[in-house]
Amino acid sequence: MALLLTPIFGPPEEWRNLIAAELPDMEIRIWPEVDDPSEIEIAAVAGLPRGKLKTFPNLRLIVSLTAGVDMLIGDPELPNVPIVRAADPGGDAMINEFALLHVLRHHRELPELALAQQRAEWLRLKPKHAHERPVGVMGLGAIGLSVAQTLAQHGFDVAGWVRSPRQVEGVTIFHGSDRLPTFLQRSEIVVNLLPLTDETNGILNASAFAAMPSGAAVVNLGRGPHVVEADLMAALDNGHLAAATLDVFPTEPLPKESPLWRHPRITITPHVSRRIFPSNLAPRVCDAIRRLHTGQPFVHEVDRKRGY
Amino acid sequence: MALLLTPIFGPPEEWRNLIAAELPDMEIRIWPEVDDPSEIEIAAVAGLPRGKLKTFPNLRLIVSLTAGVDMLIGDPELPNVPIVRAADPGGDAMINEFALLHVLRHHRELPELALAQQRAEWLRLKPKHAHERPVGVMGLGAIGLSVAQTLAQHGFDVAGWVRSPRQVEGVTIFHGSDRLPTFLQRSEIVVNLLPLTDETNGILNASAFAAMPSGAAVVNLGRGPHVVEADLMAALDNGHLAAATLDVFPTEPLPKESPLWRHPRITITPHVSRRIFPSNLAPRVCDAIRRLHTGQPFVHEVDRKRGY
Repeated sequence: MALLLTPIFGPPEEWRNLIAAELPDMEIRIWPEVDDPSEIEIAAVAGLPRGKLKTFPNLRLIVSLTAGVDMLIGDPELPNVPIVRAADPGGDAMINEFALLHVLRHHRELPELALAQQRAEWLRLKPKHAHERPVGVMGLGAIGLSVAQTLAQHGFDVAGWVRSPRQVEGVTIFHGSDRLPTFLQRSEIVVNLLPLTDETNGILNASAFAAMPSGAAVVNLGRGPHVVEADLMAALDNGHLAAATLDVFPTEPLPKESPLWRHPRITITPHVSRRIFPSNLAPRVCDAIRRLHTGQPFVHEVDRKRGY
Repeated sequence: MALLLTPIFGPPEEWRNLIAAELPDMEIRIWPEVDDPSEIEIAAVAGLPRGKLKTFPNLRLIVSLTAGVDMLIGDPELPNVPIVRAADPGGDAMINEFALLHVLRHHRELPELALAQQRAEWLRLKPKHAHERPVGVMGLGAIGLSVAQTLAQHGFDVAGWVRSPRQVEGVTIFHGSDRLPTFLQRSEIVVNLLPLTDETNGILNASAFAAMPSGAAVVNLGRGPHVVEADLMAALDNGHLAAATLDVFPTEPLPKESPLWRHPRITITPHVSRRIFPSNLAPRVCDAIRRLHTGQPFVHEVDRKRGY
């Protein structure tokens, strides 16, 4: 039996060495060299073509190498085996850093100062203390939770919006769609880290932007379709929102003709919130394989119905 | 005897209340209403016109409300009394935050991505871990030390350049002008927080930029004259330096005609690294006054000869 890997993050040899060090008996196939499809027992994948996974008759486990599983679950012919995300339970230091960077940028009003620079205008704004700045994090999965805690550690007044009630020290929790407007009303900077599901598709729309306080900023590190782009541009153009930072888009690379590129109040980053290193992911893949073989419960198993 | 205050940071009434709460017997004069100049015993000031302090015959103490005392010491008629900086010994949370923001911006290559956005180009750079990024802090006074420690806590590989040898946990120390080139050679992001003295004037010049590694970035949060602006623009234009962020300038506000405003690789912020709050400074002013009256040694007393 063999492990199939899509080596889109890092060199194949590094993957081979990392897996061999932990699971020396595991045979490894690097996509697209599958050899005999019936030998594939585990697929640790990202970006595999739709319909491909069903061609492995003895598949027992899918490990998603990306945090978002929306593309995977969107495969109508996905085999009915467990799906596990190879996510670090402690979150991701690079996303923490990137989210902190963008919250600090909006907190210290760098987008406004950049527009002033274009006019050669010495614009003296009065910076606020972090504790005077309410920040809202949408989605408290492993990554969102870690981001919310990082922001709280930096002194921000942090709230989190989640599906089900829970308690997180230092973070005010709002749960359920009923509480979304209240959460948005108190959040001067909103960071989206939700999974993409039928319920969250287009959640950052005209009514969400209208609920945010005047001068608010939006940072989307989730998925492109969370944001209704036309609504975002309208909310920026009518002056209600101050600025937005987008790292993810419905189509990536973002097409040249997209008006987002040229919007003066939108910062575009090319899906760089984190870089995935084989050395971070390989231990998670090996852990999932060991749990499969010993019958232990998986960590970060995906609920297909829920969508994450 | 009375305390003279220049109320350029915050409303005069707030100053009066804060001082009165700690030193109820202190008479307070708010510049420019001095009344009888012979009554002024302590001047807690920033931005007073040159030659003004010598008009107070019974002056016993000057408290600088700004961290930099170069303007004060530059007064050729400065009375020969102790000068104390009203600096928080723990550094300044707002400058820590601002320095961290700009180091993160350069670390995550946002200036390069902003230029790519102007070209509607999806530029996939490979982000580094913080520990792979050598950052150098010039000047380890109360503020610089606190910034260096903040950066080290965020995982950066931090070095500090100082005048005299010392030890700081988690920060590699280089001291003296002999070691400046070595310090610069290892620093991909250089943050300047030096005091402005004859020795540090123009320290960020062509030879300093040439010593830095190719692709390095400079963040000046010290004083404008630390940077030789023409040398900086040349080093950016010839591609050796990647980007610079300047918060301070020899003339402030930065004149409209300055070419810095329009340089594509320079980020201008209008001296906003921190905001000075009366509630932070008043306790330091009161502490200095108590030490004057009880004969205890001052905290942050300025050495005029050294210049800070």
